[in-house]
Amino acid sequence: MRTRVTELFGIEYPIFAFSHCRDVVAAVSRAGGMGVLGALYFTPEELEVELKWIDEHVGGRPYGVDVVMPAKYEGADLGDSEDLMARLQAMIPERHRLFVNELLERHGIEPLSEEGAGRYLLGWTDATARPQVEVALRHPIALLANALGPPPADVVAQAHEHGVKMAGLASNARHARKQVEVGVDIIVAQGTEAGGHTGDVSTMVLIPEVVDAVGPDTIVLAAGGIGRGRQLAAGLALGAEGAWTGSIWLTVDEADTPEASRDRLLSATSRDTVRSRSWTGKPARMLRTAWTDAWESEKSPGTLPMPMQFMLISDALHRINRAGSSELTTFPVGQIVGSMNRVRPTAQVIYDLMEEYIAVVDRLNHITES
Amino acid sequence: MRTRVTELFGIEYPIFAFSHCRDVVAAVSRAGGMGVLGALYFTPEELEVELKWIDEHVGGRPYGVDVVMPAKYEGADLGDSEDLMARLQAMIPERHRLFVNELLERHGIEPLSEEGAGRYLLGWTDATARPQVEVALRHPIALLANALGPPPADVVAQAHEHGVKMAGLASNARHARKQVEVGVDIIVAQGTEAGGHTGDVSTMVLIPEVVDAVGPDTIVLAAGGIGRGRQLAAGLALGAEGAWTGSIWLTVDEADTPEASRDRLLSATSRDTVRSRSWTGKPARMLRTAWTDAWESEKSPGTLPMPMQFMLISDALHRINRAGSSELTTFPVGQIVGSMNRVRPTAQVIYDLMEEYIAVVDRLNHITES
Repeated sequence: MRTRVTELFGIEYPIFAFSHCRDVVAAVSRAGGMGVLGALYFTPEELEVELKWIDEHVGGRPYGVDVVMPAKYEGADLGDSEDLMARLQAMIPERHRLFVNELLERHGIEPLSEEGAGRYLLGWTDATARPQVEVALRHPIALLANALGPPPADVVAQAHEHGVKMAGLASNARHARKQVEVGVDIIVAQGTEAGGHTGDVSTMVLIPEVVDAVGPDTIVLAAGGIGRGRQLAAGLALGAEGAWTGSIWLTVDEADTPEASRDRLLSATSRDTVRSRSWTGKPARMLRTAWTDAWESEKSPGTLPMPMQFMLISDALHRINRAGSSELTTFPVGQIVGSMNRVRPTAQVIYDLMEEYIAVVDRLNHITES
Repeated sequence: MRTRVTELFGIEYPIFAFSHCRDVVAAVSRAGGMGVLGALYFTPEELEVELKWIDEHVGGRPYGVDVVMPAKYEGADLGDSEDLMARLQAMIPERHRLFVNELLERHGIEPLSEEGAGRYLLGWTDATARPQVEVALRHPIALLANALGPPPADVVAQAHEHGVKMAGLASNARHARKQVEVGVDIIVAQGTEAGGHTGDVSTMVLIPEVVDAVGPDTIVLAAGGIGRGRQLAAGLALGAEGAWTGSIWLTVDEADTPEASRDRLLSATSRDTVRSRSWTGKPARMLRTAWTDAWESEKSPGTLPMPMQFMLISDALHRINRAGSSELTTFPVGQIVGSMNRVRPTAQVIYDLMEEYIAVVDRLNHITES
């Protein structure tokens, strides 16, 4: 296969795989796609360890790193001041803390005996994502992606100085144009059916709009609802140069998804997701569980703005996972979850995608030529 | 082009066009697609007039009729009793009538001087849709479609006796299987981005699920987000045998869409729709205007179940259209509205679709073979 992204990166298949799991990232790149490691959950020191591991296991194939530098968040005016976290913590209402604790108690989830995981801010802010960028650019990455809004211009420049291409996620044509203005090379146009932070326009409608809006000089990848060859073909038919996938890597052999979450993902249907602010404060598509329902209920205090919502719930997520609670577990995942019904090795997923893709192109030719 | 639906109906292109406007229906069929007349707004007598006109103007090409026989609605137990409408009218709370009147007053919409349009029930019930079916089957239609849930088994049998194929709209795989069980020949799998009554699963995810769920004996058409060749190709890539379109026919030359509505459709973006119960009581994607916003506001009394919601608002819609109010006007329309930016003749829309489709297949071959 040859599209502008296979040419640009020297990869075999135009399939990009977002994952927080280094094993998946390396396996996708080795199989001919491009793995992209989500840096969000790692401290700079941990990220260094992960990337070193990938360098040693990716067989010289290209891979990427994904950070989150939201254009807008509470506390952005505080910069990287040392007491950023303390000041944000102080802004979280007691009512919200009570709501979370009562919810977990109601489901019999044990409180933390230790101090708390302490992972409240993660890479959710410009201030905490920049050190991740520094670490990433010390490794031979081929792509740096930013997940929420246009990246700061100096970060784009820094990436380009290192010969690294910059990608940005966009959920509508206006946002895509903004990304191009700051120098982003690749737009990941993400439909509402995608997992994680999404807008409201579907992939089917969004991709042609974005392709036309950014013009021929910018590469567009299709994201949202892509898990098999039919959908890869559809994404390319809509005008994209490749597919950006995420959800489907949560249930591969190599994934480190907690067992309770993985089992719920395997049995979920495409109707079992919901766009909810209960994870980060911005709308993100997630598995619908007692967790997301509680935040929609009448007793809900409402969600907090980014990054305070995640700071509020960080310990709770830790407790839920530790307890292996399948009632309360939740996960950013797209509607494609309905097709994620069995565990396969990462490489197999890539080959199955390509096999079906080839069959689809054959079918289209048969339809068209006759 | 040749798919199972072009073969089945002897049409040139696998493009189905739903429209309430007879001119559009005839023009689509004459251009090589298949026009499908929405019967909902017509009395049986009026439907007879419309179909007679189509018979005279369709040049012997096949066309279809679409009715609404919802599986569930208030008053279904009343059958076709003569006082069905009066009994349903009596169930509408005064609070709801006041809300609608105050909303229109606030926007300066004149009250009706006459008695009211009297079009309260339309074809929204089994009882009122059956006479439409009777009329339709007296004409040389090729297809009878039902828009909400599986049609009654005797209606399917009646259609088949007349050599007419039966289509049913479905927004998830479970509903699609139910349709197949009652003998439906063609499933219109409709993604959440579609106009009118929709579910929550996107076209990208839905089509492969439905194709696999119904098996090789049932034909699937892709609906939702299809307005141009890229999207037709994507729908076929996803496994459908053709595309079911609707929104894009609202802004063609031949359409009888009220001017205020048409102008808003032409300027709307793909983000300007919303799934709302404010039209019929069931969730339907519509143009987002002051109308849909009012029903979501704090002052909203909430919507009524089908068919009472439409009975409640029927006169109001009449008043809004008569006043040419572009603030309050609303319309069932899909997210593809963002691409509906100019008025073209119906035949031109078909040819543009096909031209782009051919270019897409060429591009896929280029990508794949190299």
